[in-house]
Amino acid sequence: MAKVYLVGAGPGDPDLLTLKAYRLLREAPVVLHDRLVDGRILALIRGKRVEVGKAEGESGKQEDIHRLLLHYARTHPFVVRLKGGDPLIFGRGGEEVLFLSAHGVAVEVVPGVSSILATGLPLTHRGLSSGFAVVSGVLEGGGYPDLSTSAKVPTLVVLMGVRRRAWIAQELIRLGRDPKEPCLFVERATTPKEARVLSQLEEVAEGKVEVAAPAVWVIGKVVEVFDILQKTPQAWALAEV
Amino acid sequence: MAKVYLVGAGPGDPDLLTLKAYRLLREAPVVLHDRLVDGRILALIRGKRVEVGKAEGESGKQEDIHRLLLHYARTHPFVVRLKGGDPLIFGRGGEEVLFLSAHGVAVEVVPGVSSILATGLPLTHRGLSSGFAVVSGVLEGGGYPDLSTSAKVPTLVVLMGVRRRAWIAQELIRLGRDPKEPCLFVERATTPKEARVLSQLEEVAEGKVEVAAPAVWVIGKVVEVFDILQKTPQAWALAEV
Repeated sequence: MAKVYLVGAGPGDPDLLTLKAYRLLREAPVVLHDRLVDGRILALIRGKRVEVGKAEGESGKQEDIHRLLLHYARTHPFVVRLKGGDPLIFGRGGEEVLFLSAHGVAVEVVPGVSSILATGLPLTHRGLSSGFAVVSGVLEGGGYPDLSTSAKVPTLVVLMGVRRRAWIAQELIRLGRDPKEPCLFVERATTPKEARVLSQLEEVAEGKVEVAAPAVWVIGKVVEVFDILQKTPQAWALAEV
Repeated sequence: MAKVYLVGAGPGDPDLLTLKAYRLLREAPVVLHDRLVDGRILALIRGKRVEVGKAEGESGKQEDIHRLLLHYARTHPFVVRLKGGDPLIFGRGGEEVLFLSAHGVAVEVVPGVSSILATGLPLTHRGLSSGFAVVSGVLEGGGYPDLSTSAKVPTLVVLMGVRRRAWIAQELIRLGRDPKEPCLFVERATTPKEARVLSQLEEVAEGKVEVAAPAVWVIGKVVEVFDILQKTPQAWALAEV
């Protein structure tokens, strides 16, 4: 039986595909992909393209995806399963690995540049943040996440959190985060439609901040680095070399 | 003045370079790189190679790196600053961006596949982990990290934690993690020397677990997925398609 490559498409810019992902996309007889993968990346595919749905928070179709993966693995020399960002960060890639392995199909994971790395913000900037956490705003099946164990990390990155941003911000303030803490939403990072929305946590909690999904949401003092870079270099001082 | 590209080299395998990183490495007149970047990646460089030190926990040299970056930016058409993994996850990449910007040098960040994505473990496996946190075992300057805000996230990833693994494990248990929780160290992921060490948190705390640095350390129930995959597919059941 064929091998299935579970491949990360990266954040959007085709130039941020790994060499291995690029080669696999060009050579694959069939690629099963999520709906949100960038069109410029899909255009690289020369074999059969099968869209398997999976927008934000959808989950009813996972069994259908498993069935399709097995079908194509049985009828093609190899299969690429393409997912946005990294294939094992949310999105149920781990379940696909386990399912295929249980059915005797070899699986190779090809990691990709997760969208959490595509904001341009140093999530662990020295003096501002000694670590970060990543959570999803939507659990598989549509549930609300438990934010209590990650609410107080120096930097918090929220994926799939745009629609529930007011609830998430309220919850984080309730759990002890500073309402004045800076937030940055990065919409469609590394694509021509990239846009940035800078605000404070309490403004998001009050429903005052307009954001278009999908976006990566970074909460914490490291957002100040973006603010610094937006200003002129002369606006702040560093020891001269 | 020249532009500086702050580029992620990925976890080790040259095939996991991004297309953009590969092209920049091949074309750069000069590349300033950390000591730990994989030799197969360094071999791709055709211009001048400048090693700027920076092994785990080193920090005295950051000002020297800034000085060198500015020197090469002033004397070359463009400069690549190459860092292992992603250039903004630990390692002071953010400081380099701010320093260069303050001196009028344009900087472009090229994200890379962080080593946290290279373990093959689904850090957010459904039912086992709704999120993850990433911390460093060594603060810049050598200090010990405050683990209190991240100790209870479902999945914890520790970078640069090998040397202090006993202390970190003791601290995590003190802060409330289950001593029986599974741990996986992945040494030199995606390289020919990749090795995996499976254990429990309390064994690490007791100094019983041998690991060679550098390694990514994953703590949490998602480690069970690795355990499942190691066994035969027949060892566990899934609904038949």
